Amino acid sequence: MSQAVNKVLIMGLGLIGGSLARSLKQNGFAAQVWGWGYRDVSLKKGVELGVIDAWSLDLDEALAGADIVVIGTPTPTANEVMKDVLARADATTVITDVASVKGSLVAAYDSARTVLAQESGQTEFAAFVPGHPIAGSERSGVAASRADLFIDHRVILTPTADTQAAAQALIHSMWDTTGADVVEMGVVQHDAILAATSHLPHVLAYTLVDALARSELSEDVFRFAAGGFRDFTRIASSDPVMWRDIALANRDELLKAIDNFSQHLDLLREAVAAGDGDAMHKTFTDAKASRDAFTLTQEKK
Amino acid sequence: MSQAVNKVLIMGLGLIGGSLARSLKQNGFAAQVWGWGYRDVSLKKGVELGVIDAWSLDLDEALAGADIVVIGTPTPTANEVMKDVLARADATTVITDVASVKGSLVAAYDSARTVLAQESGQTEFAAFVPGHPIAGSERSGVAASRADLFIDHRVILTPTADTQAAAQALIHSMWDTTGADVVEMGVVQHDAILAATSHLPHVLAYTLVDALARSELSEDVFRFAAGGFRDFTRIASSDPVMWRDIALANRDELLKAIDNFSQHLDLLREAVAAGDGDAMHKTFTDAKASRDAFTLTQEKK
Repeated sequence: MSQAVNKVLIMGLGLIGGSLARSLKQNGFAAQVWGWGYRDVSLKKGVELGVIDAWSLDLDEALAGADIVVIGTPTPTANEVMKDVLARADATTVITDVASVKGSLVAAYDSARTVLAQESGQTEFAAFVPGHPIAGSERSGVAASRADLFIDHRVILTPTADTQAAAQALIHSMWDTTGADVVEMGVVQHDAILAATSHLPHVLAYTLVDALARSELSEDVFRFAAGGFRDFTRIASSDPVMWRDIALANRDELLKAIDNFSQHLDLLREAVAAGDGDAMHKTFTDAKASRDAFTLTQEKK
Repeated sequence: MSQAVNKVLIMGLGLIGGSLARSLKQNGFAAQVWGWGYRDVSLKKGVELGVIDAWSLDLDEALAGADIVVIGTPTPTANEVMKDVLARADATTVITDVASVKGSLVAAYDSARTVLAQESGQTEFAAFVPGHPIAGSERSGVAASRADLFIDHRVILTPTADTQAAAQALIHSMWDTTGADVVEMGVVQHDAILAATSHLPHVLAYTLVDALARSELSEDVFRFAAGGFRDFTRIASSDPVMWRDIALANRDELLKAIDNFSQHLDLLREAVAAGDGDAMHKTFTDAKASRDAFTLTQEKK
C-alpha cells in the first residue's frame, strides 16, 4: 500500500460492511475502523466482536478525519445518505459503496453535489468511487461477518469520468487487501451485466413461483416438484424488499434484460408450437455448451 | 402382494429400468427379471452386475410369458415400440412405462390398437398402465442403477378410462415394492403438472443461458455470474435430446405453461416499467412464501 490510511468508516454494519471491517483490521489496512448506523445494536455488537474499533450515531463525529467512507447500507438508503455524507465529509475523503446497482448511486452523487452547491454554495466535494463486491452468504448481519468473505470473489469498481485516479487507486488497494479479485468497468456495463446475470434470474424465479402458486394446479405443483425445480427456484426465497429496491434502482437495464429474454422465449415458443425439434435442439445444445463452459470456469476458480 | 409374478421384462436397461430391476429382484417381487434392448452391451452388463436374470434381443422371446412389461426407453422410442409390444404380448400381460410425458404414450397405445385391429384383425390387447417415477440421478446407464433409487420418491400412475382395475393394482403393487410413494392421477393432469414444474423450468433455463450467450455482454455475463445464477441455470446442462423429445411430446401442456408464465412476466415487466414497487413487493413476497412453504414440505420428506 502506497498510502497510510488512518480511518475507515463503515456506514451500515451488516454482513458485507462487517466482513470488510474485519478484513481491513486483520490485514492492518487502516489504523482505525469505525462504524455508523441509525441504531446502536449492530454497532455495539461490532465492537464486542472486534469487528470495528469504535462507532458513533452522530454522522459528523463518525466522518471526522475519515480517509475512506464505505456506504454499506441497502440501495435506497445509500441513495438517501449520499447527500448527508457529501455535505459533511472533507474533500480529501474518498467515498465508496457496496450496492448492487451503480447507476442510481452515481445519479444520487451527482444530484447531491448540484443541490449542495445551490443550497449552501459548497464547491468542493469528497470523491466517489462506486463499488460492488459480488459476495454474500445465506446469513446476514454483523454476527455472520467473516474476514475471508471476499477472498477470490469479484469486486467491480465503476469509476466515472470525474473519478480522480488517486481516489480510484485507494479504493482498489482497499479491496486488494481483502483478497478480492478487483476489476473495473463502466457504470452502464456493470448495471447491464448484473441485470442479466442476477436481477433477471431473480425476476424469473419469483415470477415462475408466483405464477404456479396462482394457477389451478397450485397444490399439486408444489407436491410433485423435484430437485431441478428446487434449485431453479432457490433465489425466489430471497428478500423481497431488497429485490424490489434493486429492480426499482436498475429499472432501465432490467427492462432491457426482460425484453431480450422474452424475445428468445417467444422464439422457443414458436419452435414448440411448430413441433420444430431442430430449432429446440439447437437452442438446448448451445445453451448446454455455454452452461458447461461456465461451470468449468467456476471450478477453475 | 396378492398375486404371484413370474416374469417382469424391462425394455431398455438404463438407470431407471436397471434400478427397478434391482429393486424387484432384491425384494423378490418376481421369479425372473428379464431385459430387452436393441443392443446387447447394457444387457450383458446387467447380467454381470446381477441387475437382471436373463436377456434377449428377440422381442418375441423376451415377451414370452411376461406378466409385466416395463417400457423403459426414452419417450420417442417408447412410442415406437408400443405397437411392436402390443402385436406380440399376451392379452394377460400388463404393460407399463416410465416416460416423462403420458399423453403421447397413451395416444401411441390407442393408435397401435386401432392399426393392429385393421391390419391383422387382432381383438385382444395387453393392458397399459402409464407410469412415471419422479426419480433420477446425475449419472445414467445400468452401471449407475441402485435398488434404493425410488425409496420415498413419487411414482405417478395415470390410468385411463379403459385401464382394468387388476392391471392397475398390479403395477401399483410393483412400485410399492420399490419403496416409492405411488399416487394416481389423470393423464392430462400429470402432463400439466410436469409441464409446470419440470418442462417449463428447463425451457426457461435453456432460454436464459442461450439469450445471454448470444447477447453482446456474453463474455462478461459468464465471467461475473455468481452463485444464484449457477443454481438457476444448472438444469440448462441437461441432455438436449431428451428435453427436445419431452417438449415435442408434451407440446400442448408446455405451450399453456409458457403462456401462463409469459402473462405473469408481462405483468411484472409493467410493474418495473411503471416503478410500481408495491406490485413488485407483493409478487416477490407471495412467491417467497410459496417457495419457503415448498422447502419446508421437502425437508419433511
